[in-house]
Parts: sequence; structure tokens; C-alpha cells
Amino acid sequence: MIAKESIGDWFKTLQAGICDSLEVADGLGKFASDIWDRPGGGGGITRVITNGRVIEKGGVNFSAVWGKAPVPVLKSLHMDPASELSFYATGVSIVIHPINPFMPIIHMNVRYFEMTDGTWWFGGGIDLTPHYVLKDDAQYFHKQLKTACDRHDAAFYPAFKKWADEYFYIRHRKETRGIGGIFFDYLKGTDGFTKESRFAFVKDVGLAFAPIYVHFMNKNADLPFHEEQKNWQSTRRGRYVEFNLVWDRGTKFGLDTDGRTESILMSLPPMATWAYMHQPAEGSEEAKTVALLKQGIDWI
Amino acid sequence: MIAKESIGDWFKTLQAGICDSLEVADGLGKFASDIWDRPGGGGGITRVITNGRVIEKGGVNFSAVWGKAPVPVLKSLHMDPASELSFYATGVSIVIHPINPFMPIIHMNVRYFEMTDGTWWFGGGIDLTPHYVLKDDAQYFHKQLKTACDRHDAAFYPAFKKWADEYFYIRHRKETRGIGGIFFDYLKGTDGFTKESRFAFVKDVGLAFAPIYVHFMNKNADLPFHEEQKNWQSTRRGRYVEFNLVWDRGTKFGLDTDGRTESILMSLPPMATWAYMHQPAEGSEEAKTVALLKQGIDWI
Repeated sequence: MIAKESIGDWFKTLQAGICDSLEVADGLGKFASDIWDRPGGGGGITRVITNGRVIEKGGVNFSAVWGKAPVPVLKSLHMDPASELSFYATGVSIVIHPINPFMPIIHMNVRYFEMTDGTWWFGGGIDLTPHYVLKDDAQYFHKQLKTACDRHDAAFYPAFKKWADEYFYIRHRKETRGIGGIFFDYLKGTDGFTKESRFAFVKDVGLAFAPIYVHFMNKNADLPFHEEQKNWQSTRRGRYVEFNLVWDRGTKFGLDTDGRTESILMSLPPMATWAYMHQPAEGSEEAKTVALLKQGIDWI
Repeated sequence: MIAKESIGDWFKTLQAGICDSLEVADGLGKFASDIWDRPGGGGGITRVITNGRVIEKGGVNFSAVWGKAPVPVLKSLHMDPASELSFYATGVSIVIHPINPFMPIIHMNVRYFEMTDGTWWFGGGIDLTPHYVLKDDAQYFHKQLKTACDRHDAAFYPAFKKWADEYFYIRHRKETRGIGGIFFDYLKGTDGFTKESRFAFVKDVGLAFAPIYVHFMNKNADLPFHEEQKNWQSTRRGRYVEFNLVWDRGTKFGLDTDGRTESILMSLPPMATWAYMHQPAEGSEEAKTVALLKQGIDWI
């Protein structure tokens, strides 16, 4: 059986590797590092990059926290709030906001949770939020995810792609956050999977991140753009803020349970705008993008 | 007994009067008007002003909606979700984001709710969110509110001021949204009050709004400011977004019950920024403002 600490250690190594890859591809920006402790047990490393050549603002968080399970955690698991169970939770969370509006925003999360009663599961996912949907990029992205999934189970990609479409949905806007990706949670020792095989899958998801985003950095970071396209990016970033603050369960949960606010909200863009009743012109590239923010599109 | 429709009609007149007063004081911006219908019954008028001389973005919403009480409404009232009760809800909601960082953001709401079982109550409030806390302005603001309250009951101002401090609190930042004001809810026919006397109070709150904000428009709109102060305003607007999307019960409720998204989110600023671990310099005016974002300050 894999010890929980070794999963945490692997995630910490993943964080360092991803930061290195992104720094090399950016060529200018450097990750700052904040090491923090959680009063109840454990802590994390928050790494933030700002004003790079390609990345405007990005965060790569690692944490491994433990202690008595907080009441909201127990409630969310439908467990007795008076229980004295302890938990261990570790993960890596990433959000990158690029400068170029033809570069997509990307989000990745891999996580592991364990309770002293023996309960454990993995969760995570990667999803992409282009300011402009470029179909080749969308296809590339989903193919990479499918490849990573297919190495483990042919049922993963279709199931986790659907889950992402459902999860990354801005209900009050009736649009998806972006072109989705994969999302999964509560991957336990069921359906013939062991902790080892679940972890192997989650590792592959984590390792898929850097090559995918570096591909976009190399391909799109120098595409020419004008001010109106940058403005459109700010509008789309507004929607990203709306999703994260209104609907994202991870954000809500972190803020509700007195998580480290600055690490949780590193996901917010450097700048966002809101205009009343903003509508892209008919037939414009912006309107075409909005028309593609739908669930159930087969991007491959 | 006052008919619910006459309360709605009064609110609609209040909206028109406030828009007129703000237009005159602004001198350049004009309110556009969107009339909308609610599928289940009723509708509203959303009025938005953009790029005025003083106001960068502001909304003044009126609505009067009715129909079968939605399940989330019944649940929030601890009533049987299967109940066939109908409701009537009307109100005016305002948020104004000014150009000048020495002008405060202001929010006002007055509302009335009634059910077919005879239940009714008023709610509302006014609160101020300065980007820079100017103590004279804070004192003026709270004095105006106290005067409006004291005409009805000497207990109102202290009680509703405390309620505002508690309500307009950004828990994950451990700071208040601004310098508070008054907030009240569930004002029913109790403690010797009638629907008439409750309505008279709510009218006075509604009528207090325009003179207060016009006072600040005349006093602060032309104060000189530089880019760094405008940047600070964007940071504070980020906190405003956080409060509205994470903690404001009205916003959450509206988005949860398929309210008109564009009318609900007119409260968001034209632009907001987020920087990781943003800290104003020690001893700066910005740091002094943050130090005053606390509950329980006696501004008068």
C-alpha cells in the first residue's frame, strides 16, 4: 500500500517540475515561492509567476494538510460532524492567465484525500479556457487528454470529459467556462482499481500538464493581437471570476474552511472587466467563440 | 392596509427619481433603460449608466415579480417546499462605481416581500465602500443614516448599523467591505409597528440615497488623483467582486433561482484587478484605509 506521505511527496516534485518547465518556456518570468504552515497541521508551497514574457499571472500550488477533520469536511462527506476522525489531503492546483488573448487559460488539479477510517480517493482534472476557441488547439488538447486516459482505461476519457462539461458550467450564463477537458473525483479502490493503479493514472494527468501548456506557449504566445482582442480577453476573464467565485466547489470549500485565501484566489486573473449586456458583434470571432461554449461537443 | 402593488409603484417612482438626480449631478452620463418580463410573473426595469463625468458604471434596478413561490424561496423560509403558496416581491437595488478613487462606491436596496398566507416584511439598507476612507465623509454618511432612522425609532440606527457591519463582511479577507451603513431584514408587523409605519421607514431610507450620493458627487468627483490611486481603486473593486460573488446572499439567491443575470450582476465594477499578496506600503493612505475596514467603529 502506498503511504499517503509518498503521494504528497510525489505531488511536491510534480509542482517543482511544472514550475521549471513553465519558466523555461516563458523565458522571462520566474516563480516566487511562499512556504506556509496550516495551524491545524501541514502546510504548502504557493508558487506565483507574474509579468513574464508569456504568462501574465499564474499560480502553481502544492499543499499537504492534515489534522482533525473540520466539521464542514465531515458534513460534505455525510459523516457525523462530532466524529474525531483525522484527515490527510494533498494536491497540486494550477491556473495560468497568459498575456496573449490567443493563448488559453489553463487549470489543472490533482489531489488525494484520506481519512483515519481507511477511506481514500483521488480527484482532479485539466480544463482549458480559450479566449478565442481555435479548433485545432481544442482538438490537440482533447487528444492529449484522451491519450493520457486511454493508457489506463478506455472508459475514462468519455466519462471524465462529460464530467468536466458538467462541472465547468457557468449556470447563470448558460455557457461552459471554456472547452472543458477532464474532471474526476472520488476515484477509490473500486471496479478492479487499486490505490496503485489510481495513483498511476493521476500521475499521468499531472505529467500531461506541462507538455500541453508549453505546446500552446510555443505556438500562440507570439501571435499578433490588438487592443480589442485584449479587451475581449478581459471580458472572458470576468466570466472566469464568476465561475470560480460563484460555482467552483473547491474555491467555496477553501474559503468556507478558512483555507489560505491568497493561495485559493491565485486563480483569479490579473484584471477583469464587466460591461452590462456585453454582446459580441454577429459573425465576429468573439461570437463564434461564445457559440462554442456548450456542453457535449466532440472536439476530437 | 397598503396594497402590495402600491408599494411596488412607489419603488418604481423612487427608481425614476434617483436616476434623475444622479443624471443631473453627473452632468454627462445618461441612464439607459431595459424593461424585462419574468416568465413566471412580473418583471422589472434595469437602468444602467456608463462612462459619465462622475460615474464610471452604475445600475439602478427596479423589479416587481410574483407567482408560485420557487422551491429555494420556500426552503430559505423554512416552509414546505411542496406548498402551493404564491409570492410577491418588489424592490429597488443600486450600485454605483465612480471614476474618481476618492469617491466611494455606494449600494442601496429597499425591498418588500409578501406571501399568499399573509406573511410580509420589508428589508433593505445603504452601505458605503470608499476606496480611501475619508473620516469626514464617513461621519457625514453615518449621520445622514442616523437622522433617517431616528425619525422612526431611536433603536434603529444602532441595531441596523451593527447588522450592516456583520452582513457586509468579507470573511475570507477578515475585513469589512467598506465603512458599513445600515442593513435590516424581516421588518414585520411586530413591536408595535404596522405595515404603514414600516413602509414609512423604508421610504425614508430610499429617499435618503440620492441626497447622500449627490453630496459626494459634488464634493469629491473633481479631486485630483494619479494612476497609483486608480490602481488601488481596481484592487478594492476586486474585493467588492469577492464579496458580491462569494458572500452576498441576494446575489447568490438571484443566481440560484434563475434571476435576470445581467440585472443581478450590474453590481460588478467596470474593471477589477487581483495581485497575489497585495500589501499597501506601511503608513500609506491605502494602509490606513485597510486598517479601518473593521466592524464596530463608531463613525459619528
